[in-house]
Amino acid sequence: MSVAPSFAPPFVSLTTDFGAAYTAICAGVVHTIAPGATVLVLSDEVRPYAVAEGAMLLVQALPYLPVGVHVGVVDPGVGTPRRPLAVETGRGDVLVGPDNGLLVPAAEELGGVVRAHVLENPAYRLPRVSSTFHGRDIFSPAAAHLAGGADIAAFGPRAAPLPLDVAPPRAEDGVLTAAYLYTDRFGSVIVNAGPDDLAAALGPVAFGAALEVSWPGRAARVTFAETFGSVPVGEPLLLTDSSGRLGFAVNQGSAAERFGFRGEAVAVRLAD
Amino acid sequence: MSVAPSFAPPFVSLTTDFGAAYTAICAGVVHTIAPGATVLVLSDEVRPYAVAEGAMLLVQALPYLPVGVHVGVVDPGVGTPRRPLAVETGRGDVLVGPDNGLLVPAAEELGGVVRAHVLENPAYRLPRVSSTFHGRDIFSPAAAHLAGGADIAAFGPRAAPLPLDVAPPRAEDGVLTAAYLYTDRFGSVIVNAGPDDLAAALGPVAFGAALEVSWPGRAARVTFAETFGSVPVGEPLLLTDSSGRLGFAVNQGSAAERFGFRGEAVAVRLAD
Amino acid sequence: MSVAPSFAPPFVSLTTDFGAAYTAICAGVVHTIAPGATVLVLSDEVRPYAVAEGAMLLVQALPYLPVGVHVGVVDPGVGTPRRPLAVETGRGDVLVGPDNGLLVPAAEELGGVVRAHVLENPAYRLPRVSSTFHGRDIFSPAAAHLAGGADIAAFGPRAAPLPLDVAPPRAEDGVLTAAYLYTDRFGSVIVNAGPDDLAAALGPVAFGAALEVSWPGRAARVTFAETFGSVPVGEPLLLTDSSGRLGFAVNQGSAAERFGFRGEAVAVRLAD
Repeated sequence: MSVAPSFAPPFVSLTTDFGAAYTAICAGVVHTIAPGATVLVLSDEVRPYAVAEGAMLLVQALPYLPVGVHVGVVDPGVGTPRRPLAVETGRGDVLVGPDNGLLVPAAEELGGVVRAHVLENPAYRLPRVSSTFHGRDIFSPAAAHLAGGADIAAFGPRAAPLPLDVAPPRAEDGVLTAAYLYTDRFGSVIVNAGPDDLAAALGPVAFGAALEVSWPGRAARVTFAETFGSVPVGEPLLLTDSSGRLGFAVNQGSAAERFGFRGEAVAVRLAD
Repeated sequence: MSVAPSFAPPFVSLTTDFGAAYTAICAGVVHTIAPGATVLVLSDEVRPYAVAEGAMLLVQALPYLPVGVHVGVVDPGVGTPRRPLAVETGRGDVLVGPDNGLLVPAAEELGGVVRAHVLENPAYRLPRVSSTFHGRDIFSPAAAHLAGGADIAAFGPRAAPLPLDVAPPRAEDGVLTAAYLYTDRFGSVIVNAGPDDLAAALGPVAFGAALEVSWPGRAARVTFAETFGSVPVGEPLLLTDSSGRLGFAVNQGSAAERFGFRGEAVAVRLAD
Repeated sequence: MSVAPSFAPPFVSLTTDFGAAYTAICAGVVHTIAPGATVLVLSDEVRPYAVAEGAMLLVQALPYLPVGVHVGVVDPGVGTPRRPLAVETGRGDVLVGPDNGLLVPAAEELGGVVRAHVLENPAYRLPRVSSTFHGRDIFSPAAAHLAGGADIAAFGPRAAPLPLDVAPPRAEDGVLTAAYLYTDRFGSVIVNAGPDDLAAALGPVAFGAALEVSWPGRAARVTFAETFGSVPVGEPLLLTDSSGRLGFAVNQGSAAERFGFRGEAVAVRLAD
């Protein structure tokens, strides 16, 4: 597919929850160790500590990026004994980040986990490792060395990555409770439940039915709809997105912005 | 002008209204198809669907970027039959984006439109084309193939690009109505009218005169002034910017931020 | 340390207070003059005109970036006779920006100022120099030419850089007044004073003591604490950060966001 196969510099991507400047410092570490590598910031604005949101971005984006080394750092456990990992995929990528499930859905999308190793070898870390900025001190140097050809087995012992921990949908007393996953390109809030879960909780729901979507301190009346265009412009709706998940959306608008949504779990019930 | 003429990798820029992560996915597509290319995100934060704002950014910025392939995606018509285009300029660039006028002012600034072709050839698209993300599936692959040397004529039939559609200034009953164009580096709101249009609507206006600038739900009293420094720090003014257009500004401040301006057309009249 | 020493393209970083698009234009100027250079935007979101904040970012970040040319533009004096400078460091970098102290702390961190020259030579500027956008017209072209091998002495006469001008801490009448320096990665507000200054103003203060931190229009009651974990989650505190400076913080939160802090000087006193 490449138009210039004779010159392909190593490729490193970065996905973090810590903003532009600190992510750029990570890019600087990669450029220092692996000059000439192409470094792309996929995102520096994952919602802080939202591991599932970061995982969903990686699973959607990485198939469109070159085979390479992809760093993901959404890491509420930094400073605890959670392990830093490198995960080789069937496609030939190496994913680098904390062992908290962040990398696992993307690895599965990219041909599955071939092998994973703990990042222990001090030769592949910065000389001084802080307790709070492993993105800079452990993950970025590891990525740069991997991009430069270091063997994943040289980093440390093999390990089995922990799965992504997202609360499953819960159906009881006519209420579906679903964990937040991510906000899509249009500002729609995608949750960890599908139309079957909705039916299990509320019974059969026809398109056009009025539902209430609520989360701590807030509720919205929405229409259960097949497509955006099924409701007037500016009106909220609940629909099934292309991945088969329920999405809380606004026709030609951003549900996340309109409702000041900040990543809470949502409850869905029939409206009065 | 170049200091290293012997090694000039192909250059691709991206200008979009869809935020950092989804624009980075487009960059990833370019890197996949054209490894070694330099990819610069000019902006991923054009106001959503603000075609004229995107066009104004391109016309101001592209003369300072290398000759290359420049992708612009501000595309309210995605999913409709609007055509995807590649536009060759007199300077030697190729501009890639929807046929909605977005690319035309920049093409004129870069030596004019030499020829334009519709992006139809499936060999230069991703294998699966979604209905909503042509930036990723059509425009970025086209840009990468053009950067790698593909012939613009191989993409599809020739076409004449549609012009940028911005409402002309309207003068009636002592009121000048002008469409929003863009917000400049200082937060000044630039509109599609000049001082002559102001005089046509209001009669001769002297510097120092008090005007009212209004838009849906909001009005501000401003001074018609020659320069920022003509009014006290923090005070709003209407002035003529370096491009000859009227700008609604605040001395040492941001009019866009201060007045919560969101891209509406503005009306200007004499203040009581 | 490099894994690919045989191919190291020149490296240029950009740190500005003027947002994404206008910083990308500067990157475009560098790419035009020095094709093949690696260009990294370290930050385009320094608080406007906050010279000390920009200086603190540079001093923390540049040690992690490759030896190269680093442009810093936080430049309230643009349009006045303040001089544009290139500053060579002991590590081998060249720092480029206005002579307002912005570059000096970083130069000291990178081995000290070896020599500095004024950027006067028109051969290393864009053909037309605007009065307001020296980032594009003077600093970026200079950086690109330096990255391409131009001799710093060819730019203009030698000069001694002005120091960074930050108000020293002031202790009087039981109140410590300290200038804002920067907001760190966690949203903690770091000020230009240390624990000794606090003791000089308030007398000995024990951990656990209640203090009042105030700034124009706002005050907060905080605990003087040794670590974040010394106060409940969500509670504000004053602590000494790893650089030995006082920081106004929130445990597992962002003080800057929570208190709408915008860069004012703060006063600290014992709470009633």
